[in-house]
Amino acid sequence: MTHQNKTMVDLLIHNAMVLSLNDEDEVFHPGAVAIRDDEILWVGSENSWPSHFDIRERLDMAGGLIMPGLVNGHTHAAMTCFRGLADDMPLIVWLNEHIFPAERKLDGDLVYYGTLLGCAEMILGGVTTFCDMYLFEDQVARAAYEAGMRSLVGEVLYDFPSPNYGSPEHGLAFTRELIRTWEENPLVSAAVEPHAVYTCSPSLLSACMEIAEEFDVPMIMHLSESHDEVTQVKERYGKSPVNHLESLGLLTPSLIADHCVVLTEEELDLLAERGVRVVHNPESNMKLASGVAPVPEMLARGIPVGLGTDGCASNNNLDILAEMDTAAKLHKVHRLDPTAMEARTVVHLATMGGSRALGLEEQVGSLIPGKKADIIGMDLAKPHLTPLYNIYSQLVYAASAADVTLSVINGRVVMRNRELFSIDVDRTMAEVRAIAKKIKP
Amino acid sequence: MTHQNKTMVDLLIHNAMVLSLNDEDEVFHPGAVAIRDDEILWVGSENSWPSHFDIRERLDMAGGLIMPGLVNGHTHAAMTCFRGLADDMPLIVWLNEHIFPAERKLDGDLVYYGTLLGCAEMILGGVTTFCDMYLFEDQVARAAYEAGMRSLVGEVLYDFPSPNYGSPEHGLAFTRELIRTWEENPLVSAAVEPHAVYTCSPSLLSACMEIAEEFDVPMIMHLSESHDEVTQVKERYGKSPVNHLESLGLLTPSLIADHCVVLTEEELDLLAERGVRVVHNPESNMKLASGVAPVPEMLARGIPVGLGTDGCASNNNLDILAEMDTAAKLHKVHRLDPTAMEARTVVHLATMGGSRALGLEEQVGSLIPGKKADIIGMDLAKPHLTPLYNIYSQLVYAASAADVTLSVINGRVVMRNRELFSIDVDRTMAEVRAIAKKIKP
Repeated sequence: MTHQNKTMVDLLIHNAMVLSLNDEDEVFHPGAVAIRDDEILWVGSENSWPSHFDIRERLDMAGGLIMPGLVNGHTHAAMTCFRGLADDMPLIVWLNEHIFPAERKLDGDLVYYGTLLGCAEMILGGVTTFCDMYLFEDQVARAAYEAGMRSLVGEVLYDFPSPNYGSPEHGLAFTRELIRTWEENPLVSAAVEPHAVYTCSPSLLSACMEIAEEFDVPMIMHLSESHDEVTQVKERYGKSPVNHLESLGLLTPSLIADHCVVLTEEELDLLAERGVRVVHNPESNMKLASGVAPVPEMLARGIPVGLGTDGCASNNNLDILAEMDTAAKLHKVHRLDPTAMEARTVVHLATMGGSRALGLEEQVGSLIPGKKADIIGMDLAKPHLTPLYNIYSQLVYAASAADVTLSVINGRVVMRNRELFSIDVDRTMAEVRAIAKKIKP
Repeated sequence: MTHQNKTMVDLLIHNAMVLSLNDEDEVFHPGAVAIRDDEILWVGSENSWPSHFDIRERLDMAGGLIMPGLVNGHTHAAMTCFRGLADDMPLIVWLNEHIFPAERKLDGDLVYYGTLLGCAEMILGGVTTFCDMYLFEDQVARAAYEAGMRSLVGEVLYDFPSPNYGSPEHGLAFTRELIRTWEENPLVSAAVEPHAVYTCSPSLLSACMEIAEEFDVPMIMHLSESHDEVTQVKERYGKSPVNHLESLGLLTPSLIADHCVVLTEEELDLLAERGVRVVHNPESNMKLASGVAPVPEMLARGIPVGLGTDGCASNNNLDILAEMDTAAKLHKVHRLDPTAMEARTVVHLATMGGSRALGLEEQVGSLIPGKKADIIGMDLAKPHLTPLYNIYSQLVYAASAADVTLSVINGRVVMRNRELFSIDVDRTMAEVRAIAKKIKP
């Protein structure tokens, strides 16, 4: 056999239950995944890989699970710095007396280290892709890139001056620069991120959409998160947040809408017709007492829906596996229907749902040859994961972040057996502790 | 100094943040706890222990947390064997086509190994006391005792024949025997446990209460768990489940009522007046779509309330830390009030609340000299637990079962650094996997 007949494989992850989450929901048990460079080359049953594979490195999962990395569709990663700073209070007190004063102390360093800590937590919890909105987002991009995570980042834009960029005009310029800086990057890309309808004028929102269309990137914003928001926007514009965006011509396939808790049937139809994508944040919506988003109704209309944790000030973690458990249970009790949001649906929300919501469906969300190698592994030989009848139920209702033992992102092993290779965790925790002491001496 | 002046200390756990959960919610940071035999001898600040202490063994927590062990107030531990067997289906299909047929295969072995696995999961998740209801409960008692866990157990009683004891009369005799067998045991005790109002005749319920009063043990039952139960009981007896028990004279301080989801204001008042205790199972109530128990209303009336996981068929885990997170968030979204069920309240529910609900408040639930030494420890130096502003928030909203690194029950170290000393985990998992293959070949 000549050298030309060989196919180089950089890494073969094998001896695992392989949950592909492809269109047929194929499970290979035992199975394996072959990776070359940053891509999945092959997925199939154990020992059935082609004989012409020249395998450089093998990783034996000892019967554990491998599956696509989880997608955290909405967060403010740097808010790890405010985890537990203020909880269990009315929204207005929480924002005005705790979060806003703390955010006045924001600087690039806080955002960099807070994000790096968030990336550590997310990788250790099986998240390989996240979508972020915050201030000093250039530092978020830097931290995420260093952590080796796939991310979609965007500087938050609103009508008032920002401690980062100053005026909204400067914010738009900062956003253009952010998009250009990262547009060729294999891991990080940037979007346009106006905060919300109640904090952004119609002209700012329209300027945002122009940039999104010019660069062919998403426009991402909070939308219809609470009853208070709806009331406030109706008073100001005579329309609900969704209808206000419609009247501005901003409900387009470029729009990713976070939360969407308070929606009428007509608004659901409108979001579906316009191709808007949604990210659902059940735990944040519970903790802030915003309400329960009509996710089954969105799915019934074919709206792409991903799952997000929101920031650590309103959750207080970045744990998508916990979010999956909550999502499955919350919709059942909310409609008194135990068949709502079944486990398999929720696993798809956290993987392909998230990648569709973020426009990354060609790249990640399932284990298919040609997709990027974003893969996580889990140890299943634990009391709380025994016995195993149904892997979807186990993932949603029994597994937890600490069960994740492998994270491969873009073909690179960034975590194995709970050890992070891309982040100095001890130093990052020390930096964030020092920041926390400044925030609350 | 003579030997007589010395006080022997078997174990000093120190260099920790000590969350006492005593009446003043004292926190010693850094602090320590001294244990002699099965009891807490002393709690206080680091290095402030009396000089006459003769310390045999020291355990350095390296800055981690120590706190009272968690109480799982309601479970069917052996149902670990059915974890993920059937989910996301209507209650009647779930019971008739999956759970009941599986339970027809019940035997003492299944219950023994299923409980042992449950004990492993609970200890690894910080639970030191649990209250159980199931069949073959003598095997539950045996497994719990071997695992070194504190438990309150009881054979489930109902009108139809049981695969364990046969007729209800034999069930009552089995219960008397169970109580007598364990009445002097330091860890295990038994209660009388009729299943529910809709499965037990008034005469069976009255016979149960007679035994409870004769032996001065609790009577424990499911009560008002779902709207279907209330409808069914009203049709049969012309009264709601709570009012039916009242008319039978069975609402007494001996009664521990599990679930209590569907209650009127009058019924809440009645439960409070009669001194009934309640165990709240938020995740099971969500997953089975039963509803949301009015827990803040119970607490406002001074009803003792503990937290429970229910069995693994309806959760699907025995994780009280997860239950705490869910309890805090569920009541906020249910009443659209972010101040409902604040973190400190929830930490008390899972500790002193549980011990009060089970009648163990003199023994466990807080770190106070003279109480039994049921103590857990946690590693706080983790990304998802950084920074630390508020320990109650951190426990409820950020900590997870895998953070628990120490379990001391009745003065005995049963787990340290995730290693269980009282259970052969690998063998137990293997036994349960073999049982699962018989249940679903």
